[in-house]
Amino acid sequence: MGDSLGQIFRITTWGESHGGGVGVVIDGCPSGLPLSEDDLQYELDRRRPGQSKITTQRKESDSARILSGVFEGRTTGTAISVMVSNQDAKSHAYDHLKDLYRPSHADYTFEQKYGLRDWMGGGRSSARETVGRVAAGAVAKKLLHHWDKIQTVAWVEQIHEIKSSVDKHTVSESQIEASIVRCPDPEASTAMIERIHEVRKSGDSAGGIIRAVVRNVPAGLGEPVFDKLTADLAKALMSLPATRGVEFGLGFDSVVLKGSEHNDAFVMSEGNIRTSTNRSGGIQGGISNGEEIDLRIAFKPTATINFEQDTVSRDGREVKLKAKGRHDPCVLPRAVPMVEAMINLVLVDHHLRNQKKRI
Amino acid sequence: MGDSLGQIFRITTWGESHGGGVGVVIDGCPSGLPLSEDDLQYELDRRRPGQSKITTQRKESDSARILSGVFEGRTTGTAISVMVSNQDAKSHAYDHLKDLYRPSHADYTFEQKYGLRDWMGGGRSSARETVGRVAAGAVAKKLLHHWDKIQTVAWVEQIHEIKSSVDKHTVSESQIEASIVRCPDPEASTAMIERIHEVRKSGDSAGGIIRAVVRNVPAGLGEPVFDKLTADLAKALMSLPATRGVEFGLGFDSVVLKGSEHNDAFVMSEGNIRTSTNRSGGIQGGISNGEEIDLRIAFKPTATINFEQDTVSRDGREVKLKAKGRHDPCVLPRAVPMVEAMINLVLVDHHLRNQKKRI
Amino acid sequence: MGDSLGQIFRITTWGESHGGGVGVVIDGCPSGLPLSEDDLQYELDRRRPGQSKITTQRKESDSARILSGVFEGRTTGTAISVMVSNQDAKSHAYDHLKDLYRPSHADYTFEQKYGLRDWMGGGRSSARETVGRVAAGAVAKKLLHHWDKIQTVAWVEQIHEIKSSVDKHTVSESQIEASIVRCPDPEASTAMIERIHEVRKSGDSAGGIIRAVVRNVPAGLGEPVFDKLTADLAKALMSLPATRGVEFGLGFDSVVLKGSEHNDAFVMSEGNIRTSTNRSGGIQGGISNGEEIDLRIAFKPTATINFEQDTVSRDGREVKLKAKGRHDPCVLPRAVPMVEAMINLVLVDHHLRNQKKRI
Amino acid sequence: MGDSLGQIFRITTWGESHGGGVGVVIDGCPSGLPLSEDDLQYELDRRRPGQSKITTQRKESDSARILSGVFEGRTTGTAISVMVSNQDAKSHAYDHLKDLYRPSHADYTFEQKYGLRDWMGGGRSSARETVGRVAAGAVAKKLLHHWDKIQTVAWVEQIHEIKSSVDKHTVSESQIEASIVRCPDPEASTAMIERIHEVRKSGDSAGGIIRAVVRNVPAGLGEPVFDKLTADLAKALMSLPATRGVEFGLGFDSVVLKGSEHNDAFVMSEGNIRTSTNRSGGIQGGISNGEEIDLRIAFKPTATINFEQDTVSRDGREVKLKAKGRHDPCVLPRAVPMVEAMINLVLVDHHLRNQKKRI
Repeated sequence: MGDSLGQIFRITTWGESHGGGVGVVIDGCPSGLPLSEDDLQYELDRRRPGQSKITTQRKESDSARILSGVFEGRTTGTAISVMVSNQDAKSHAYDHLKDLYRPSHADYTFEQKYGLRDWMGGGRSSARETVGRVAAGAVAKKLLHHWDKIQTVAWVEQIHEIKSSVDKHTVSESQIEASIVRCPDPEASTAMIERIHEVRKSGDSAGGIIRAVVRNVPAGLGEPVFDKLTADLAKALMSLPATRGVEFGLGFDSVVLKGSEHNDAFVMSEGNIRTSTNRSGGIQGGISNGEEIDLRIAFKPTATINFEQDTVSRDGREVKLKAKGRHDPCVLPRAVPMVEAMINLVLVDHHLRNQKKRI
Repeated sequence: MGDSLGQIFRITTWGESHGGGVGVVIDGCPSGLPLSEDDLQYELDRRRPGQSKITTQRKESDSARILSGVFEGRTTGTAISVMVSNQDAKSHAYDHLKDLYRPSHADYTFEQKYGLRDWMGGGRSSARETVGRVAAGAVAKKLLHHWDKIQTVAWVEQIHEIKSSVDKHTVSESQIEASIVRCPDPEASTAMIERIHEVRKSGDSAGGIIRAVVRNVPAGLGEPVFDKLTADLAKALMSLPATRGVEFGLGFDSVVLKGSEHNDAFVMSEGNIRTSTNRSGGIQGGISNGEEIDLRIAFKPTATINFEQDTVSRDGREVKLKAKGRHDPCVLPRAVPMVEAMINLVLVDHHLRNQKKRI
Repeated sequence: MGDSLGQIFRITTWGESHGGGVGVVIDGCPSGLPLSEDDLQYELDRRRPGQSKITTQRKESDSARILSGVFEGRTTGTAISVMVSNQDAKSHAYDHLKDLYRPSHADYTFEQKYGLRDWMGGGRSSARETVGRVAAGAVAKKLLHHWDKIQTVAWVEQIHEIKSSVDKHTVSESQIEASIVRCPDPEASTAMIERIHEVRKSGDSAGGIIRAVVRNVPAGLGEPVFDKLTADLAKALMSLPATRGVEFGLGFDSVVLKGSEHNDAFVMSEGNIRTSTNRSGGIQGGISNGEEIDLRIAFKPTATINFEQDTVSRDGREVKLKAKGRHDPCVLPRAVPMVEAMINLVLVDHHLRNQKKRI
Repeated sequence: MGDSLGQIFRITTWGESHGGGVGVVIDGCPSGLPLSEDDLQYELDRRRPGQSKITTQRKESDSARILSGVFEGRTTGTAISVMVSNQDAKSHAYDHLKDLYRPSHADYTFEQKYGLRDWMGGGRSSARETVGRVAAGAVAKKLLHHWDKIQTVAWVEQIHEIKSSVDKHTVSESQIEASIVRCPDPEASTAMIERIHEVRKSGDSAGGIIRAVVRNVPAGLGEPVFDKLTADLAKALMSLPATRGVEFGLGFDSVVLKGSEHNDAFVMSEGNIRTSTNRSGGIQGGISNGEEIDLRIAFKPTATINFEQDTVSRDGREVKLKAKGRHDPCVLPRAVPMVEAMINLVLVDHHLRNQKKRI
């Protein structure tokens, strides 16, 4: 009872790492949108493991199949079902994890909740679950572009201690995609790639920060008082695996400013009401004000590492866990399309919720 | 269509700064809980303006009245309605705000959304709206204590640049309440009070950080994959006015650690499975693991200041706004009970959602 | 967790027969609708006990107060809170019901569910609970009229064995209101009034059937596959006290027709696509087709009667119940505005859900 | 935005008659329930076209595949995804329907709503959509049996004018399944089969009534005031294709009884509180009272007939429609498992909603 997100554009994801597949049902997509499997595949390929030498080398082809809701190339307005089959996987690769809890994974908490768990590849807690989100996000992206040319751009701002310098107002998707670590600052990108290789070699992992901006957002999105745009974005982003924090505009840094330093003055610009600064990150009182939405998400370092770690077994004995095989030393490059997907899903839902607000 | 929060323990708030009152309907409270208006009043008094010399001096008595759902001193299981009447207010105090947009307030965004706005005291965007949340939170607090002695403790960790040092494991509500700024570090408390007086005198305002821990949380709360406990807490907290960011455990600081430095090892302790560290903040894979929940929320400086500010009028002219009268230079002390309320509301809801998870 | 209805235009009712009052919070009403307490009062007066000599003589003035969501005479788009205070009531009138279960009332089932019950006047199961529905329905009625002149007209079609004959296409609200039993067939109306006097005198009660038509419904309302217009209307109507069945178009009578006799042929009429008959009652595949919606609801005879009845006490003894005081021999005249309210609430919600269905 | 049903046990169906398949995602199923594809297949086979000589002869094998949520033979507590692939179908069989509206079908209303429609086999309005419901209903059936041996039994009570006589208290599933028309009255069954052959031969269709009882229902299911058990059952049943009405207990017949004739007296029976009669159909005040739930659903005659019918084309010309090929003259035998599924889905959801109602 937590596999759905959204009020009007409502997605329901399903699937585990090692079952028949993963997928999503999208309820509430308007009719008439041209949609093909290729539209989804582009985003799934950005999320896919094995796409570059710095991600996990586990191969997943992740071919999307649209099973319903599209007729003669256009959405019908009824439920869109998308499925990605799982490849055959060697289940015995997980045998040694069956009876113990990996530190900082969801093994223990799932078992506390449900009394049992699917121990192959993390089951439902696997990041493979995000396939359905990214597929649905691709539909959302098309809708946002169609309506108002709303565009979400996310990139890796920091990995471990390596920070980047990026002009958030002009950075483009192609600049971001030119870096396999999805950091459009070439110098930082090189350093980040090197750092990822280092932590991989040592069997360790690294976290980081993803930044996102959304352009061309109309004023008025967000529903007082609980479904503020900040609130719904925070929820959607914090539902991604490994997230530890989210902030909007100046975020935590805003607390060292005084009100007179933080307020965004309104000005007239080419006949439009705008703000001269955007410390609020495009959202005031939980409602978009027409400026760029600006946010940051913190991802902890991946819990899977090739170190011997202390843990306990299901029957309560203290044991040593030595992880086997390849691991993904840094999830951030692949998390960029996930972040974009979550933002786009929230924006489409709020766009649809914002209809007929006035008689 | 955003005035409700929660799936099973579901609250719906209503009311503006200057209408007939503010209130909340609580749907889904179990029957049999002893409940009186005094239970609510204690928390409302902590939220009330004018409670100390450092908050706004606007007087609100905020007397809670329970209109339904309680019979012979116990909850009946049906909808609990709580109302707090508004005092008569001088509406002409707001006349000068009628036709312009206060910077970094919700005036402009509300009007963009709805085409009109209640310009008295901010209407629905007023922090007065949180009265209903705090009243409902008082019910949630009683339930959590009754079930598992779950206890949420929040305090002011930072105001402007002044940071405090607090032992999060032992800090008590009485220590916090002993400080009018709700910071249980006496030295920092004194400095914070002084800083608030300074910004007030200069007509300015300050933001800060509230920290909260939750004790005695059972393992298993949180619903994969979208309604993770982190996600629902983030949403609830980010729905409070003036919030700019939220983080769990090490939060944004986790990104400079490697996996081997960040993972929380499982250990046996007095026959129970525990973690030797708690960098995760008590939540793994979006589900509570039985350790203390630990989180921080950033509040921007209050938008209302007594400075002349640039802004524009409803008809698109650039004008000067000179705020009149008293303002609240720092909302954080009063935000402490709001933060606790939001956390408690989410925990009660997730506790109720966590029933019969196994056949 | 069942006190709310609707997805976008969402109402939450609260209140019992003998607490502080009854009311409703309306979330999702578009802004800009002129709304006054008089708008609500007209419908509440039609629902009110004691409005004529054939209803219960219990006096309730039922004055509506709008506490929020209306500013300068217009809705603001935020939550509208409406309250009707309860009059002081003699609680000892219910003392004899405290420890036993009235047959075919909800006393027993509420206590089985919640472990305790508010035994004054039925608590939350009292028909007084419908005050909030009728107040919210008045808002819905105004919206429907404003948008498309959609008009719901309901009347008493049958009481006990007395059937009426009414032209459903032309019957008007004023014709219905001209009869205190709300049956616009004068002959049947007279007979119904007499029958109600009879059952009252004998301490008994009568049920009946309410029929409703909705005019000027646009085609397209209703959401496949679960939120069909028939399905949501059925739910809303069956949530009224004392309802036992609902049917659309020919309803149960349709089963004795063959497909060739039942199908509604499409024809062109003045340039519009219409059906030559309307056996479907204006809804096909769960979506309105632009013809009149036509439905009927069965109400059982009121459970409260002045007869000695067999029942059992809370501690499991077989006892005799002899009801005291006045009772309402037939709820149907007062149920007419309740039926209209439920239909209007569903239609407004579906109207709002039907926005931007196409890109 | 209408493809989901339920609050805690929540199903989302997808799929059309002629896309990649049909299916359902079940969110909120407790963990630990033994579940196999065979469990689903049994119910799908009862729903399947071509299962006997009186149903449509279109062949659908309808093999269920469980794609997620089951691990080592037991449910995991996370989303269960079930898919049934569509067989290759001759799409040109529908070419003649592309540009006109079949009378009393959803062709016209879908197109009015969405601006376009999937004209192959009815698209989303096809009864094939119920595959997902029946698969999910099979899971619900297992849960209900596991918890309280709750058993739903439905049968065909009437087809066209042919009524049956069945002892509702003792009738068993095997008696019902012994009749291809699913009427356990052998004489009526024979007459019904003959009538179906007649209408088929003449190219016509017949409707009828399905009756259902639910045994071993615990008292206390149903959520005041809108989510009454009657209300939610009514909605779920009226969301099935071709339904025209629903009634509980004596239903429409209750209106000719007086209160003294209709009330169900409470009595003690073997130490339990029971009612001596069950005119209420097991539900009082919207909450189950522990007696048998008893309800009836009216199905109109199938809209597809082999008659020449008047209709109009998409471009507004009056035309003749002559249906081609085989049709299903009476949907009722196949609707029996659909009715059971909807009832079981509602009961499981309400069972789960009824947890921890008391502190």
